[in-house]
Amino acid sequence: MRSLVFDKSLRFDARRSEPSEHDGDTLLKVRLAGICATDLEIVKGYMNFRGVLGHEFVADVVSSPLKDLIGQRVVGEINCVCGRCDLCVSGLSTHCRNRTVLGILNHDGAFAEFIRLPAANLHVVPKTIDDDAAVFIEPLAAAHQVLKQIKLDGRKWVTVLGDGRLGLLVAQVLRNVDCPVRMIGKHPEKLALCEKWQIRSRAVSDIVPRHDQDVVVDCTGCANGFELAMQMVRPRGTIMLKSTVAAGKPINLAPLVIDEINIVGSRCGPFRDAIRSLADKNVDVASLIHRRMRLEQGAEAMELAARPGVLKVLLNAE
Amino acid sequence: MRSLVFDKSLRFDARRSEPSEHDGDTLLKVRLAGICATDLEIVKGYMNFRGVLGHEFVADVVSSPLKDLIGQRVVGEINCVCGRCDLCVSGLSTHCRNRTVLGILNHDGAFAEFIRLPAANLHVVPKTIDDDAAVFIEPLAAAHQVLKQIKLDGRKWVTVLGDGRLGLLVAQVLRNVDCPVRMIGKHPEKLALCEKWQIRSRAVSDIVPRHDQDVVVDCTGCANGFELAMQMVRPRGTIMLKSTVAAGKPINLAPLVIDEINIVGSRCGPFRDAIRSLADKNVDVASLIHRRMRLEQGAEAMELAARPGVLKVLLNAE
Repeated sequence: MRSLVFDKSLRFDARRSEPSEHDGDTLLKVRLAGICATDLEIVKGYMNFRGVLGHEFVADVVSSPLKDLIGQRVVGEINCVCGRCDLCVSGLSTHCRNRTVLGILNHDGAFAEFIRLPAANLHVVPKTIDDDAAVFIEPLAAAHQVLKQIKLDGRKWVTVLGDGRLGLLVAQVLRNVDCPVRMIGKHPEKLALCEKWQIRSRAVSDIVPRHDQDVVVDCTGCANGFELAMQMVRPRGTIMLKSTVAAGKPINLAPLVIDEINIVGSRCGPFRDAIRSLADKNVDVASLIHRRMRLEQGAEAMELAARPGVLKVLLNAE
Repeated sequence: MRSLVFDKSLRFDARRSEPSEHDGDTLLKVRLAGICATDLEIVKGYMNFRGVLGHEFVADVVSSPLKDLIGQRVVGEINCVCGRCDLCVSGLSTHCRNRTVLGILNHDGAFAEFIRLPAANLHVVPKTIDDDAAVFIEPLAAAHQVLKQIKLDGRKWVTVLGDGRLGLLVAQVLRNVDCPVRMIGKHPEKLALCEKWQIRSRAVSDIVPRHDQDVVVDCTGCANGFELAMQMVRPRGTIMLKSTVAAGKPINLAPLVIDEINIVGSRCGPFRDAIRSLADKNVDVASLIHRRMRLEQGAEAMELAARPGVLKVLLNAE
């Protein structure tokens, strides 16, 4: 099958074997996939992944042990879990000790014609959500996770740091629960999107960090973002970390202790909430699409997605 | 007055001026002071402090606007606050934006004959607590802060990382609330103390980190401790940071996101709880005293306190 493979370098492979069946999982034919910052970090060495990239997708079910699924248009949760380890048993199955993760950890991903996932990972996409929106369900779920992990009651000063793909979703999700969110970004055209969405925004160059934010959600995708977040958050405030970056940098953690800051790492989130947001037209994802490209152009598409200011690049697998 | 001064280098100063009166604060004659890891970090550049070091002490009140205090034996909270800024008004006065901090930030400290503190900072020491114990009230309060910041209900696997001065206090405080705490340290003689206190302990060299601890309290005082804590804590677990170190080191924060870890910085704590623990003889601090030295020997005492395995070095100011 056609696929975009990372194995020390990135290459289009027109003849890769289809993923092999595993414990009666479901075979999916990918319709559309999205390039995420995590894909860009993998190419820099993050997770030491080798194989087909991609974990944001919408697809049709080709075959499945659950016959009702066949022919359905679905999205899929990316963690494939054992159901038996201590973490699965205690309800933390997204952290399963034996998991594979689509396009990230020991599991070929969605920049390909076909993928396989357990039926339990799949969510049927309502007809009111088109492919261009459905491909955002995975990152939108990650944005919704912010609401699951911190209480926003009475928090007056909430900043989303970073106007990239994920930051713009997080800002919309926070606005939708009447959180007084403010976006701090770099790119005028993205900050203009915030204005359109009635989300306050400021250019990072205009900001003097004052240790006065109740919550800072770091969606910068770069190690510098965390240092700025530490300067923006108030004592006893919360920094929510949404960025995974391949490179470490020297960080002095003493301010965390002095200011008794709370840091919350945040990863995948609830698909149902993301599907509901899109079905209800509460989140604008269409404005986030920068370009559609074919799978054959995958390497070029990854280069494009890595450029400053570029939002979502979609890969059409059909 | 006699004092131990840090000003790029550390020196005993026999003729330093007594601290000047400020807004009717209280003059204290220091009886005994303790050397803390923070003092050792200040000498390495932490906080850019210049002046008299020291913030753990027990003292006699010489003069005070509160006449009842005069002649009393007291300990003192180290943050001197304005009472008017947004943080003071919101109940976070230990984080006052205009604070000075005894021996740490713009306020001459307790390695001297005399210090000044606002009367509101002082706590009278019950007669049942002798000077050797009272000098531990400040760090013991910092240990008690762990209980204020995280819920331990149902947490089965709690590790204190670092068998130094603070770690050994934190471990005792956790044991006292029936928390199933385990100490991971380096020094056989300190781990032997844990056995005496009926606290489980292991040498760090015997540990294979398994991402299985509900809570890890990092009391190592070194930047490496945090990385080990990240390897020990379970997904969605909590790392409590008690160490302030002057130097940063390259840290990759991606594991915090992947494992959705919660980090809680923790600093000063409730003096009342510490005083009660000592009055009730629930915490053994006598075993933590390594040596008593005179203020004149301050520089030598600091060198001694910096040696691996050395616990509390006390400075007698009288």
